[in-house]
This record gives sequence, C-alpha cells and structure tokens, in this order.
Amino acid sequence: MLNVGVIGTGMIGQDHIRRMTQVLSGVKVVAVTDVNSGIAAEVGARVYAAVHASGEDVIADPAVDAVVVCSWGPSHEQYVLASIAAGKPVFCEKPLATTQQAGLRIVEAEAAHGSRLVQVGFMRRYDAAYRALKQVADSGDIGTPLMMHCAHRNPIVPDDYSKESAVVDTAVHEIDMVRWMFGQEIAAARVLIPRKSRNGGDLQDPLLLLLETADGVLVDVEISVNIRYGYDIRGEIVGENGTAALGEQSPISVRRKGRLTTSVPADWRERFILAYDTEFQEWINSIADGGRPVGPSAWDGYVASAIAEQIAAGLAESHATTLKYPSRPSLYD
Amino acid sequence: MLNVGVIGTGMIGQDHIRRMTQVLSGVKVVAVTDVNSGIAAEVGARVYAAVHASGEDVIADPAVDAVVVCSWGPSHEQYVLASIAAGKPVFCEKPLATTQQAGLRIVEAEAAHGSRLVQVGFMRRYDAAYRALKQVADSGDIGTPLMMHCAHRNPIVPDDYSKESAVVDTAVHEIDMVRWMFGQEIAAARVLIPRKSRNGGDLQDPLLLLLETADGVLVDVEISVNIRYGYDIRGEIVGENGTAALGEQSPISVRRKGRLTTSVPADWRERFILAYDTEFQEWINSIADGGRPVGPSAWDGYVASAIAEQIAAGLAESHATTLKYPSRPSLYD
Amino acid sequence: MLNVGVIGTGMIGQDHIRRMTQVLSGVKVVAVTDVNSGIAAEVGARVYAAVHASGEDVIADPAVDAVVVCSWGPSHEQYVLASIAAGKPVFCEKPLATTQQAGLRIVEAEAAHGSRLVQVGFMRRYDAAYRALKQVADSGDIGTPLMMHCAHRNPIVPDDYSKESAVVDTAVHEIDMVRWMFGQEIAAARVLIPRKSRNGGDLQDPLLLLLETADGVLVDVEISVNIRYGYDIRGEIVGENGTAALGEQSPISVRRKGRLTTSVPADWRERFILAYDTEFQEWINSIADGGRPVGPSAWDGYVASAIAEQIAAGLAESHATTLKYPSRPSLYD
Amino acid sequence: MLNVGVIGTGMIGQDHIRRMTQVLSGVKVVAVTDVNSGIAAEVGARVYAAVHASGEDVIADPAVDAVVVCSWGPSHEQYVLASIAAGKPVFCEKPLATTQQAGLRIVEAEAAHGSRLVQVGFMRRYDAAYRALKQVADSGDIGTPLMMHCAHRNPIVPDDYSKESAVVDTAVHEIDMVRWMFGQEIAAARVLIPRKSRNGGDLQDPLLLLLETADGVLVDVEISVNIRYGYDIRGEIVGENGTAALGEQSPISVRRKGRLTTSVPADWRERFILAYDTEFQEWINSIADGGRPVGPSAWDGYVASAIAEQIAAGLAESHATTLKYPSRPSLYD
Repeated sequence: MLNVGVIGTGMIGQDHIRRMTQVLSGVKVVAVTDVNSGIAAEVGARVYAAVHASGEDVIADPAVDAVVVCSWGPSHEQYVLASIAAGKPVFCEKPLATTQQAGLRIVEAEAAHGSRLVQVGFMRRYDAAYRALKQVADSGDIGTPLMMHCAHRNPIVPDDYSKESAVVDTAVHEIDMVRWMFGQEIAAARVLIPRKSRNGGDLQDPLLLLLETADGVLVDVEISVNIRYGYDIRGEIVGENGTAALGEQSPISVRRKGRLTTSVPADWRERFILAYDTEFQEWINSIADGGRPVGPSAWDGYVASAIAEQIAAGLAESHATTLKYPSRPSLYD
Repeated sequence: MLNVGVIGTGMIGQDHIRRMTQVLSGVKVVAVTDVNSGIAAEVGARVYAAVHASGEDVIADPAVDAVVVCSWGPSHEQYVLASIAAGKPVFCEKPLATTQQAGLRIVEAEAAHGSRLVQVGFMRRYDAAYRALKQVADSGDIGTPLMMHCAHRNPIVPDDYSKESAVVDTAVHEIDMVRWMFGQEIAAARVLIPRKSRNGGDLQDPLLLLLETADGVLVDVEISVNIRYGYDIRGEIVGENGTAALGEQSPISVRRKGRLTTSVPADWRERFILAYDTEFQEWINSIADGGRPVGPSAWDGYVASAIAEQIAAGLAESHATTLKYPSRPSLYD
Repeated sequence: MLNVGVIGTGMIGQDHIRRMTQVLSGVKVVAVTDVNSGIAAEVGARVYAAVHASGEDVIADPAVDAVVVCSWGPSHEQYVLASIAAGKPVFCEKPLATTQQAGLRIVEAEAAHGSRLVQVGFMRRYDAAYRALKQVADSGDIGTPLMMHCAHRNPIVPDDYSKESAVVDTAVHEIDMVRWMFGQEIAAARVLIPRKSRNGGDLQDPLLLLLETADGVLVDVEISVNIRYGYDIRGEIVGENGTAALGEQSPISVRRKGRLTTSVPADWRERFILAYDTEFQEWINSIADGGRPVGPSAWDGYVASAIAEQIAAGLAESHATTLKYPSRPSLYD
Repeated sequence: MLNVGVIGTGMIGQDHIRRMTQVLSGVKVVAVTDVNSGIAAEVGARVYAAVHASGEDVIADPAVDAVVVCSWGPSHEQYVLASIAAGKPVFCEKPLATTQQAGLRIVEAEAAHGSRLVQVGFMRRYDAAYRALKQVADSGDIGTPLMMHCAHRNPIVPDDYSKESAVVDTAVHEIDMVRWMFGQEIAAARVLIPRKSRNGGDLQDPLLLLLETADGVLVDVEISVNIRYGYDIRGEIVGENGTAALGEQSPISVRRKGRLTTSVPADWRERFILAYDTEFQEWINSIADGGRPVGPSAWDGYVASAIAEQIAAGLAESHATTLKYPSRPSLYD
C-alpha cells in the first residue's frame, strides 16, 4: 500500500484524491494540505488523512511515501524541489514549472540526485486510443510517419484566457504527445492566425500550430478553445502507405428526427477519465516497493513548457506570401 | 477495506483476484480455495491470502467479510446457500445454479433470511454502452420501445459446446439484459433454426431466439458461437419514433490497402473488461460497511436460467409456414 | 434511340418521364396516356409526346417501341398482357398484378410467347449498395450466408394503410431482394407481432417477418411504416466467418451541439433515386436494337406477390411458447 | 438535343464521350478530332460522329453547337480562343491554360465577346458531398467558417511527376474548391515541406499547403500523391460553433478477420464519377436553347491556375522558427 500526501485540494486535487481512495488499487491518501486550510480540513476529514499546514510538512511527514502536487502552478517548483531534496517520488500536475528557468532547476536538481523521482501529469500517454495509435505508427503498417493532423477543441474557456494560454495550457498536451508519439524532439515551429471566432471576444481563437520533429514529421494542430459543440480531440498520422486516426468512441448511436447521431465528450474529464485512472495506477505500481517512475519525466515537462513558451512568445509567428492577380473583369461578377 | 474470500481460483477466479488486488479500491482478498489445492496454494501465496481446504472453510473464516463464488457451476448452489446461512454477502458468477430447482432453493433461502445477500454476475448491466442505451430507452427520446435487435457473436467455442449451451451459457446474457433494459419479465419465446455453419461440426449454429416481454416488446437475438471474425455484441432498440444502438467503439481507425478499418474485440474479456471492473467496484461499494447488494439478484439469476432452460429444452421451437406456388416455367430458368 | 410509351402519368409516371427525358441516354418518350386525360395532356405537351385515349392505343401506336406501365395496380395485368400480345417489351411498375391469378396469367402468356418481354420494377437490384453486398456474399469472403437481418423503415404512411399493405406493398421489396440476393426461392415464412406503435392508430405496426430460403438462410425483416425519423433501409448478411452490411452513406457529417450527426434519407425517392436511374438505363440498353430484358422477370413479379399475399393472408402467423415460472417473492420487488 | 464536338479523344475525352452517348440526356456527339487520327477515327466510328482533321475544323463544323476540349493542356488556349471567336460555348477540361498569360488572353477575349461562353472542368463543385458541405457552411449552422482542413491523396503518380505538378495539377482542385466554397478570393499562401515519402523517389511528397482567403479563413491542404492505400479526398470546415466534414461513403461495411472494414475509392474516376455526370448534365442543360454556362468560368480557371503557378514557383515557401533548449541530461536518455 503506497501512502500518498497531496499538496493542493482544489478541483483537480480532489479529483485525484477521489481516484486514489475510491477507484485505484494499492494506494492510500495519508496527508493533505492546501492554501485554503478550511478546504484541506474538510477533504482530509472525508478520507481520514492528516491535515498539514504546508506542502513542506506534507513532504516531511514520515508516513508519506510519495507526493502528489496539484497546487497553484507557480508553487510547483518549490514542492517538487523539496520532494527531490527529501528523496521522495513526486507526481506533479502540469505545468512542471511556470518558467523555463524553474523547469531547468528541477531537471538539474533531479540529475544531481542521480535517479528519477519526478513524473509530470501528461495523461494522454495513458489514453487507450493514443496508445493504439502509437502502436500502429511503430508497427510500420502505414509506413514511416510523415505528417500528423491534430485538433484540440474546447467548448469554452474563461474570459481571461489569453492567446498565450491557448499555447501554454492547451497546446502543451499536443506538444508532449508529439514528442512521445514519434520519439523525436520538436525542432521547429510556426503559429498561424486564422479568422477570429466571435465567441472569445478579443481572444485570437482559433490558432494553427505547425510543429516539426527533428526528423521532419510535420504536425498541424488546430487549437479552438471556444468552439461550443464539445470537447473534441482529433489526431491522424499520415504515413507513407496509409494513415491511422483516433476513433470516434461514442458508446451508442441514436437515429432520431432525420439524423443518425453519436455523442461528443462534454469536457476533458469525460474524454480522459480513464487515461487519468491508468496514469495514476501505473505511477503507483511503478513506485511501490521503492521503484522509480517511468512516465513523463521532469525533462519532458521542462521541454514541453520550453517549446510552448517560445511559441507563445511569438518567436514562431509565420507570415504568408501574398498572391497577385489582376482585378476581375465585370463579366465575372 | 472489504475482506473477500474467493472460492474457485481457475481462469475467471484468478481474473477477479487480479481485479480485486491490482485494479479496484477498498477491497482485499484474504482467503482462497479451489478443488485443485495446488493452484489455490499458488494463487493464495501470490496475494498473501489464507488458503483453505474447502469453500465452507472460506465462508466460515472470521476474516472473510464477503464471498466470491467462481467454482464449477454445479457447486454454486452449495456455496451460495452456505453464505446465506452464514449471513455473508456472496457474489456468484453465473449461473446462479444449474437447475431451476437449485435456483429456487437459493431464492427461498434468501427470502427466508429476509434481506438481500446474493448478487449474480451479469456484467452487461455495468457496461457503459448498455447503460447509455437504457438511458435513451427510458428517456422517451425515441418513443416507447417496441422491438430490439441483438446479436451475440463468439469467434469460437470448444468442440463439446452444445445447442443447449448456446442458450444456457451464451444467450442467457441477452435474457438478463432484456429483463433489465425494459424492466419487464420475458413472457414468451421462440427458437428458430437457420442454415448451419460448418465451423461447428454437428453443432446447430447459429440460432435465432425471439423473446417477448410481458408488455409486448419483441426481441430477436442472433446467437453465433463460431463466427471466427471476432467477439461482437450488437443491440438496437426500435422505438416508436427512432432507434438507439450500441456503438462501434474502436479506439482508432486505420486507412490501409484500399480499406478504412476499425477493430472488433477478440473475445469477451476485451469487450467487457471495464464492465467487470465496474460490476465489482459497485458491488464492493454497496456492501462495504454492512450494506446490501443492489445488482442482479438471486431472483434475476434464477429467472434468467429458468427461461434459458425452457428454451434449451425445446419448448419454444418454432415452425414456419410453408409457402406454395406452382413450378417455374422453363422460360425463367 | 428507344421510343417509349408511358401508361399512367401520376406521380411515379411523371418521375419516370422526367428520368427518361432529362436524365437518361438513348430514350425518348413518344406517347402517354392516363385515366385523367387532363394530366396526360399536360404531361404529354411538356415532353412533345402524343397523347392517347387509352393504354391500348399507346401499345398499338407504331411509334412506340416499348411500354412503361405506371397506372393503378389493378390495371397492370391488362396492359402487360396487351403488350405481350403486341410483342412489345414492357416495363411494369410493381406490383405486376394484384392477384396471384392475374400474375400467373401474365407468366403463362409470356411463356406462350416464348421469350421475355416483361420487366418488373424491383429497383433494389440496381442499388449500388445492395449490388456490393451481393458481390461480397457471392465471393465467399464471409463464408456461406446463413442469416440476414433487414429493416425497412418508413417515416409515415397514409391513414388507410393496412397490415396487409405493410406486407404486399412494403415488405415485397425485401421478398424480391432476398430471392435475388441468395439466388434461392423463399420456402417458408412467419409473421410476428411486436408491441404496437401509437403513431399508426389502429394499424399493427411494426411487424417482424421471418423468411426462409429453400437452402435454409433465415431472414428477419423489421417492417416499421410510421417510425417518423426517416426512411431507413438496413441489411446485414451473416456468413459462417463474417458479415456484410449496407453502409451509412451520408455525404457529410456535422459536429454541433454535443453531437456528431449524419443524415438519414427523408424518403424512398432520396434513398433510391440512383437505383431507379440505373434500373431504367439498363432496361433501355437491354432492349435497344431488339434485345430482351434481363432484369426482374414476370416470374419474379408473380412469385414476390404470391409470397406477400400468402403472408398477408395470415397463413404465416406465428405463435410463441409461453414461459413459466413461479411468482416473484416480495423481497425482490 | 445539343450537338457537341469533342477535341481530344484520349482517355478523358473518351470517358466524356461515353458519358455524353451512354449516360446523359439531351446531348449528341456529332464530331471528334485528335492529334492521333487513328484513335479519332476509331472513336468517331463507334459513336457515328464525323471525324475532322483539326480542332479548328470541329469548331467550324456547322453541325457543332458546342465544343468540349480534352486535348493536351498546351493546346487548350488555341481551341478555347477559336471557340470564343466562333461564338460557340466551350467546355474546357482543366487547366484552362498552361501559363498565366494564356489564361488572361482567354479571359480578355471572353470579356471582349461580352457574355460567357467558357466553362472550366472543376468537377468538385458538382460533387454531392461538397455541395452538402457548402450548404451547411452557408446555413450558419456551425457559425462563421474560420478554418478548413483538407487532404488530397492519390495512390500513385507517374515517375515524372514533379513537386510543381503536385500543386498545378493536384492541389488546383482544392484551390478552386476553396474559392467556390467560401465565395472569397485566396489572398495568400504558404507551402510547407514535411518528411519525404520514399514511394516517390526524388519527388518531394507530401506537401502541406496553407491558403488564406481574403476574409481570413485559413485552409490547410495535405497533398500526398503516392500514398498507395487509395484515392481519398477529405475536408472539414471549422466554424465558430461546430464543424462539417465530407462523409465516409462506402456502400457497404464488412466484418471479417477481426476488422470492421469499409472501402476507400481506388482512384479519382470512382470517387468523382457522379460529379462528372452532374457537371456535364448541368452544362448541357444550361446551354441548350442558346443559354449561357453558369459553372466555373474562364476567370475561375485563370485564377486557380495563377495561384497554383505562384505557389509552385516557390514564392510561398515558408520557413519555420527553430526552437532552442539545452542538451538533455543523460539521466533522461
């Protein structure tokens, strides 16, 4: 039984606590903390866990075998570094850190420690459909991969969501997925700016990201964060001889009022709930009995954020060539 | 933490032990037994559970809160009755009993006990797709249900599989599903005999079952047990104004060699693995802290088997009307 | 250029005239007639065709190479017999005749003539999807066919539609399709009566027909004539090693408001418009230059109607076996 | 009856002659010619058409009402200009002309003539699926269109196919389709170079084109010309509130050997055969009785080619921004 301490008992922290106490095997939540001590007390009482005053206290608690960090992004560095210092495995929700420098400090601390302790919460690597996609890509059945078409669609984001968030918080999942899918670093990028949706007010939405892996696979990623109709994650790998795509996975189909309909997930929780379960169960299994994490590493977390930041900083903005032709004769109006 | 004793550590017993020790939450396997004491010892050692000489000893073990029966079908009655006598919750894999009389004895013993202890392993009620189907049927979105079309296809069965097995072991899942889906008893049935597949030697395969609920919903069920291409479970409810069907759920689609392909499950484990997980987790949750099971009851187990037996006994064989017309003039040869 | 005379210029007659004058190649409508002489005059003027007082006059017109009969069903026999007497090819919309005796008289007249002149309007044999299905069935790719599941769904029928019409006018298309698909006579049949839809008032709707070919293929056919949601024709052949089914053929798919939707045809015209075009073009091609028709014959028309009539006459009504079990203990309420 | 003269009786010319003589209504092929006089004679004899020594003779033939140009691309200008000079409607297969200057000369000649005579063979505008897509885009059901994702996949091209051909001959169809779909000019473009397929030898294949309409709709187009698995045309419009995509249109689906499969078209003929039929029938209908063509105009042909040429000339090649990060610590190897 792995005894876990959870830092941060907000929405995502509570969901992971539910997962560890009601869904998964071989794990127990023994300590919690939150900047909001009232919520921490309430959640702790519910699962019979000790309630600590700070993340550092959770990490220091001798009953805690491993740490889960779900606190506010800017605090991630501090708790991950403290966990490394304590020699305890730590699962850190993305982002690993909010600046490239902070990410690098974690990477360097862990490298100095000499073995892996950190895992970052990129849950797509645990999704059954992405895993089946990778299996086909790796099998050679469609030939060598040359391109990938992706779409990441959110029904709605808060009013204060920015173009930078669309890259750093949303597209970062595709950035990690591409690195994992093709086993290659992303070497270059572009951002293209389509016509703007009115759903997001001043926000430039959607975006089209173009990523190139070191060996030349070209990946286009539509980022739409206010598309209303649902949460839709699409991906198709184009190989030399065929393609492989994420499937439609509606449990049922309904024929009604002139239409055959299947459902689209309402939000990311619905789409990735099983991926989160698998991610945590595999993490728990890997570190039980003193093992080391094998999932997304601090390096993966750092690089994904570094790429996202460079893209968000406008370094990759791409300009098209204007085409020329004479004006149209009135005959053709 | 619910402490469970498992009677029968064959293939299905081992799978449920894996589930309870590696996948699910709030449960521990504390005792096992099997007619093959070597296997019981091996499995018990692996999960640190006591190994007992008999099912009765498992049930009597004070450390055991609840019993899971996965032994040979004819022994189910004995262990379920002993569990009821001991006042312990018991999860019994289907069939609940192998004769109608045995099933009825269990029902009567539990009724005499005065509260529910028994749950029967009809996992389809826990399948996400069937649950979504029931939700649409109940919602009225397609009008009142009038018919249902089902297919239950197995790639292959052992040589000694009989026409009776195709009803009692295979179709029994549709029989329970129909009772649950429509909240109605099955009042009448027919069996029709199509052209015989050569894949099964002398076995009459496929069969077409026709079930009628008490309120007139007509359900046709294709039973094909040697259809080779995969394990395929289909279902479409026909309402007054529309239909709802189990979806295709392939995680990915592949375009290759002139075809767009998705995958069909290879066997029942692949198709229903999540349903089994949900079934057990909900059972565990329901009886933790002294609660009572709310899943398929001894009555459900008894009735499904009683229906299957009556059908298998040939009571429902249906004969078609022969059509008449003159012989065909040679002009039309 | 084949010169055609059309008897009957109602809805279906006008549609075939449109087809022959605006869509197909190698055909000209040179003469028309209708019991409503005003409509005949109007339609004739539109396509520059002679307007005759009677069907017999159309048949006798020396400018007419071939006859298309789209008049009221009970008049079909008379015009088909007259065409045979005149030695002219005749395309007769279904039904070939409204009684078995009438159909047999046509068959005997054509047999006496000694070569084929008659083709009956079973357009499904010309539908690209049914043809692709037959190709797979014949190829052996799915093994020998053993069963077929069909559904024939109409959104709405007139108030005076009867249970007999549901067989004679609606299911007759499946009856012919099955004979053609498997190259076998239908030897036996059953009719089953599901719960009744309230959409049709007193009409028993839906029905489940069960047809058996001479070599044992068992075909179930759902007939739903008031199902509102659309016109939907489904079919899946179950072979020894696999199945083949009519596809979903929506030109586009739309993601909107939480749903992925494709469209269902609104009516039979939309579903089968290309099949009608192919049917007529192949008929025209077959009889141009003095050739003989190769499509559905008078025998096919007669047999399909004879089967439908016997089913509609109640000869095939099937009764289920009532199942027995004791009443449910109150514990399980 | 429209009397047509066909210039060029090669593969595509013969296919259009088959279409006009065996499939469509209201048209007759009365004259043909080809640089290979033997083929012209053979084809002409088959359809009872006069065989002329030159395209100019076909155009001058008083029996010819309208001209179809299917000859070698570089000769298109000459025959289209001659048809305009003769005041006869002319259907010109794409490309309208092989240089921008030639295209412009046609546009100017037709503008000088003062009314439309020329139609260019962009058949996608007549495809039922693209038309349904445009209907949804125009309806507002998915909100204002913002992006479109396209793929144009060919199984194989001849060895001498060049990167320029991939734009000028292949992508030109998407260029025209986008202009028609959104009713907007294409204002800017980029070309991106993915990893190269080994199927095409030295050929850079695939390409990713990025087109921007005047009002900002961003269109990505995958061009794969040697992808082996089939001929596959994909398109999805992304609106503010939803998306609409070309459907999968396989007539049947087959379940066999662990897979559910539908078919992908083998080549462009299979995919667009009905679009060609509709294109020609609508063209015939539009110019019968002295009418004017309403399909893709000389301007459309000129602009599509002008855009394709500018892209092929490398004006739009796009360069990505290289991303930077430190080298990976060996811990993460």
